[in-house]
Amino acid sequence: MSEKGILVVFSGPSGSGKDTVLNELVKADSNVKVSVSMTTREKRDGEIDGVHYYFVTREYFEKKISENSMLEYAEYAKNYYGTPAEPVDEMLSQGKSVILKIEVQGAEQIRNRYDDVISIFLMPPSLRVLEQRLRGRGTEDEETIQHRLFIAKEEIRKAYDYDYVVINESIESAVADIEAILCAEKCKIERNKKTVSEVINNV
Amino acid sequence: MSEKGILVVFSGPSGSGKDTVLNELVKADSNVKVSVSMTTREKRDGEIDGVHYYFVTREYFEKKISENSMLEYAEYAKNYYGTPAEPVDEMLSQGKSVILKIEVQGAEQIRNRYDDVISIFLMPPSLRVLEQRLRGRGTEDEETIQHRLFIAKEEIRKAYDYDYVVINESIESAVADIEAILCAEKCKIERNKKTVSEVINNV
Repeated sequence: MSEKGILVVFSGPSGSGKDTVLNELVKADSNVKVSVSMTTREKRDGEIDGVHYYFVTREYFEKKISENSMLEYAEYAKNYYGTPAEPVDEMLSQGKSVILKIEVQGAEQIRNRYDDVISIFLMPPSLRVLEQRLRGRGTEDEETIQHRLFIAKEEIRKAYDYDYVVINESIESAVADIEAILCAEKCKIERNKKTVSEVINNV
Repeated sequence: MSEKGILVVFSGPSGSGKDTVLNELVKADSNVKVSVSMTTREKRDGEIDGVHYYFVTREYFEKKISENSMLEYAEYAKNYYGTPAEPVDEMLSQGKSVILKIEVQGAEQIRNRYDDVISIFLMPPSLRVLEQRLRGRGTEDEETIQHRLFIAKEEIRKAYDYDYVVINESIESAVADIEAILCAEKCKIERNKKTVSEVINNV
């Protein structure tokens, strides 16, 4: 129906499975793209420019900020991280839905810029499941796991600020829910006023 | 996610394919039910009580109105038509989504009673397609067809008052859109506050 793509802010606590779900979603639906962030930090081994991040200089990043060309950005550990507007706008105008995997703070900046952005919060089915997943990685000691669980609990409180909550019971169900949300959003009357008026006026 | 079913007001102009789409939807998804209306008019040949309508006496219908047990009702040609609340509430509490195929006036009455009702308007892809469908029936003369098209145009203007617009390009796509809308609505944060709080509190 609606021809323009939908801009989606996508968040969730560490261990909720954001990357896995988004990878499967993009494979399943060629009309969905995940935005690539821009950063000034050093490229690590195995990282590919334009895939994991756009790796740029500090000078370039600050130029983009001054040109108001960043959808959202923040500085961590003396490096900038953010979402450049241009590729997002281009994908949206091609009818692709664009998913921004960002933190709640970034989500706020996006909402100030786009009035029709939607937001989805990915949740683990329970803290027990989240704990199992964090332990399953086998890379963290007990103290780190307990700290991550504490942070996750705080992060999940932010779900109330999102439009939709998707519970990651399984990758398949989470992907299906997100696809349904995108499909339903395209049917919203706000996105179809032109279509309705074209039918009435027999265009 | 959300355990309670979703109440859906479903409308569309004559010839938009409401019955066909709903029949297929109910076949495809056992969690969706279509509400049966109640009427005081005479049962016609082939009509089954409880399937096409609940056929009741005028006295019984007026009792239901006085008990505030009708979700919506109207009187046409000296007969009452309306939606009894009890079966709808029962299906909703069983987690079934319930579709009310009603007119825009009825939709307004429903909204006054339920604050979380959603509304879907089924549209033909164009007036040309609607005209073809009406002619395809082969049962109406030119004047009737022109009159129906005029009415349809007026009815389509009401689409702006609905939450969602589904364009009946094909039965399959319309059914898929409605299923997506129901799935997305179940992910809305408003319907999941309890779930989020249970995860946070580790229930």
